[in-house]
Amino acid sequence: MAITNTLFDRSILGTSALAMIPVNHIMRPLELTDFRKGYMECLSNLTIVGDVTEDMFSDNFEEMQRAGGYFIIVIEDLLAERIVASGSLVVEQKFLRNCGRVGHIEDIVVAKGQQGKRFGFTVIKQLLDLANATGCYKAILDCDADNVAFYEKCGLVNKGNVQMAVYAPDAAHK
Amino acid sequence: MAITNTLFDRSILGTSALAMIPVNHIMRPLELTDFRKGYMECLSNLTIVGDVTEDMFSDNFEEMQRAGGYFIIVIEDLLAERIVASGSLVVEQKFLRNCGRVGHIEDIVVAKGQQGKRFGFTVIKQLLDLANATGCYKAILDCDADNVAFYEKCGLVNKGNVQMAVYAPDAAHK
Repeated sequence: MAITNTLFDRSILGTSALAMIPVNHIMRPLELTDFRKGYMECLSNLTIVGDVTEDMFSDNFEEMQRAGGYFIIVIEDLLAERIVASGSLVVEQKFLRNCGRVGHIEDIVVAKGQQGKRFGFTVIKQLLDLANATGCYKAILDCDADNVAFYEKCGLVNKGNVQMAVYAPDAAHK
Repeated sequence: MAITNTLFDRSILGTSALAMIPVNHIMRPLELTDFRKGYMECLSNLTIVGDVTEDMFSDNFEEMQRAGGYFIIVIEDLLAERIVASGSLVVEQKFLRNCGRVGHIEDIVVAKGQQGKRFGFTVIKQLLDLANATGCYKAILDCDADNVAFYEKCGLVNKGNVQMAVYAPDAAHK
């Protein structure tokens, strides 16, 4: 499959979340050209991004597109041509539940100075719409205890489960 | 890519976990023929499996193999020719952390009547080895609070995060 500029078909985006986007902004699938619109800088508000070159970005983008199941969305400030928020839905195929699917919500980030515009809420709403559109029987995420109230407003429920983790010996814990 | 009987290349399995397997048992990648060895019955000890036909199983297996990133392992009782335990590592590609990878540990199950043989522990150990072999900077899982002590014995740490979930309207919550 030839690589295309858009990570996934934008026609599956939910319209109710799109309607929440302010003027001069757009919410859409990640594009290959977002490397030059500060996508990695936006991610750096969340965690360590390292030193990703445009070639690395392009190879990774292509691999996600080939594999399928990666639904990364961004909000772009169209005047500044900068990515100001992002979030991912990673769709996992299972055998259980009639070969069902689970959507993992990952890497929700709003750039510094962009708070107060409900971008986090809007991104989550869109990812939940995408989980529905891709046939997931549930969508899940892990968050700090401090963020439970925010995610409850987005419609998620605390099921009382605990996240356990182990890091590679040379990986920073963040 | 043509479908093959083994979900992934068994040469990447960690030898220390393989050494923990009792006589007349084998730990290996999921195989297409495991449908006839009770793989779905084994999964039914964990949650709802539904009514998966051999064709559905085969199509799903092929899709996982095509996408890559699905490392499902099983323990087979070689005398009974039955699957007695299983677990999955789903490798998620990211852009952050130098285009790093996270391993999601999913669907750990030991069949009824097979407890006390350390199969759960052995499966987790193997999945952690696979997370390492596939270059994951961390491996994570969500569990009931009751199982935290077990996963701590496996080498994982409770990072204090909370799992939030939302189910599709027609999906049973289990």
